[in-house]
Amino acid sequence: MITKPTLILDESVCRKNIVAMFSKAQRNDVIFRPHFKTHQSLEIGRWFKELGVDKITVSSLDMAEYFAPEWKDITVAFPVNILQIKTINSLVAIIRLNLLIESVETIDFLNENLTGEVGFFIKIDSGYHRTGLAPGETQKIDEILSLSRNCKLLKFRGFLAHAGHSYKCRSKEEILEIHENSVSAIASLTDRYVDQFPDLIISVGDTPTCSVAEDFSMVDEIRPGNFVFYDLVQNQIGACDLDQIAVGLACPIVAIHDERNVIVIYGGGVHFSKERLEHENFGSIYGLVAENKGNGWGEIIPEMYVRNLSQEHGIIAVPESEISNYKIGDVLMILPVHSCMTADLVSHYQTTSGKMIERI
Amino acid sequence: MITKPTLILDESVCRKNIVAMFSKAQRNDVIFRPHFKTHQSLEIGRWFKELGVDKITVSSLDMAEYFAPEWKDITVAFPVNILQIKTINSLVAIIRLNLLIESVETIDFLNENLTGEVGFFIKIDSGYHRTGLAPGETQKIDEILSLSRNCKLLKFRGFLAHAGHSYKCRSKEEILEIHENSVSAIASLTDRYVDQFPDLIISVGDTPTCSVAEDFSMVDEIRPGNFVFYDLVQNQIGACDLDQIAVGLACPIVAIHDERNVIVIYGGGVHFSKERLEHENFGSIYGLVAENKGNGWGEIIPEMYVRNLSQEHGIIAVPESEISNYKIGDVLMILPVHSCMTADLVSHYQTTSGKMIERI
Repeated sequence: MITKPTLILDESVCRKNIVAMFSKAQRNDVIFRPHFKTHQSLEIGRWFKELGVDKITVSSLDMAEYFAPEWKDITVAFPVNILQIKTINSLVAIIRLNLLIESVETIDFLNENLTGEVGFFIKIDSGYHRTGLAPGETQKIDEILSLSRNCKLLKFRGFLAHAGHSYKCRSKEEILEIHENSVSAIASLTDRYVDQFPDLIISVGDTPTCSVAEDFSMVDEIRPGNFVFYDLVQNQIGACDLDQIAVGLACPIVAIHDERNVIVIYGGGVHFSKERLEHENFGSIYGLVAENKGNGWGEIIPEMYVRNLSQEHGIIAVPESEISNYKIGDVLMILPVHSCMTADLVSHYQTTSGKMIERI
Repeated sequence: MITKPTLILDESVCRKNIVAMFSKAQRNDVIFRPHFKTHQSLEIGRWFKELGVDKITVSSLDMAEYFAPEWKDITVAFPVNILQIKTINSLVAIIRLNLLIESVETIDFLNENLTGEVGFFIKIDSGYHRTGLAPGETQKIDEILSLSRNCKLLKFRGFLAHAGHSYKCRSKEEILEIHENSVSAIASLTDRYVDQFPDLIISVGDTPTCSVAEDFSMVDEIRPGNFVFYDLVQNQIGACDLDQIAVGLACPIVAIHDERNVIVIYGGGVHFSKERLEHENFGSIYGLVAENKGNGWGEIIPEMYVRNLSQEHGIIAVPESEISNYKIGDVLMILPVHSCMTADLVSHYQTTSGKMIERI
């Protein structure tokens, strides 16, 4: 029984999302290295294992440590935090670890401090402009590659990009355009380096492009993460349908103000995160309300949304015609704006059939 | 040594904030019932105990359970979540618990389900319009009071308001205006009910008004919370100076992009929260950077701010003249936008002298 804000996981939707992405990787003959930063759960990880997946991506060394007992090939898709060299060296002793390099300083540091073999990808900026070297910065790339040859423990694996600018898209067409441009940008490096490194891997992998694109002929590996749960942001981008969203936050009603068409729930910024979405009709929102089916959720209820969040309170705008259907003690099911951030705030998931699933 | 994002607490600043608010309550002869939702730490709670404080406020029943071993008089300043009646009944067995009521439905439910004595405040909406009854809704107030008389376990304590609209202020003058209007609104109930309830308490308590106002003659109790740490929002409102901010997030530099005057830190939305602030010069920001003094922080560095956050990445805008002063592996000290939300994401604080302080 739900008594307080609880993140509910629809296992069957989640497994369908996993199978769909796995199948797409197989059809395209690319390595499937899913990003586990969204679910951060050994148990959900096993749903991938059942399909034969044996390589994963994470976004921190701590996450790599959490998954290391069950996953032996992990890429940390985040610029190396050299202050955690001890963690790196303890990981390389037990798993095949791949790191992300984008500077001479970092490769120098690893040269001097590694105690075991590490694979590395050079991070390429394929248009998002968050991190990485531009594909044209071949002088820096050459310098990094040349320095890495001084260290037997550093093995070059290939080039890696994250087309995070796909999150600004609002249609499948826009996503496909980002995909083509981003893939062309990083794949342009293949010609230049493939003779020196015949096994080099071109790795890409945001959820929007991996969900929508069908042509992966220029890449070798995909690393989507959010698709495991999807969310309202992905739906707004055009990357998923609402019925592909696999998590909802169940929140008790604690107050009803019909004079201003508002329901107050126990469920605030510490449960949803403060991630918001600009909705075309409602302005900034923090979630949409779906029918509570007891053992899951159904359709989105029109005109009902999370208008504001304090630390523990959520303010739900409710149509005047609907508000009399609710009473204090009812539980609302709310689809989150950004499932990665919402999931990060809970210690476990509760499935629609009542099973508890642990997280990191 | 800092190796990853760490919330640093300046104990001496924090203790000064506590003493200042405690002294103000004493000068004004009002009950000091600090809100512990910001720090959520038994150890920091003891810094209040040392001064003689023996009553606290929290925002959830779970938080009340956490503090119950050391605090015997707790108000849960959140509309009663009736689904947690078991927790309520286990708390009333061990502490003096005060709940917040704003509906007939809730008082009816408690009438039927309580197993021990509970104090209750009627929540008054003094202008924020989040929860509570308007001061003019005396018919509803009378109905709640009348129903409460049917239950020996329900004891009326008084009226409680939270002037959360003070967060929209941008000067001390605006805060004082909110304070006067809000206090007048709730205190207007004293005349009507004081004959029936001679001990009734008028309780108010947001950090902005409690920090700035000096006249509390119409109230009996204050419940500020955020003042223990303060933050950039409170500074923007006009509630504190920058040197009263007691927490900073220490984050390692993992990449430097001088071609676009950007530093990338390990420190993202899962460390800061996605709470943002509209800065008059920089637009939306997620933090300001202060000089890292090794054992704490100094002045704010002009023109340097957290421009964007992903899940684990923070993007720092850096003036062109400054960027060469930094290298990968350096640690930046960042003052948070909203300390309640940032603190909620950590399991402990590390003081500037290296001591670990546990949280809930």
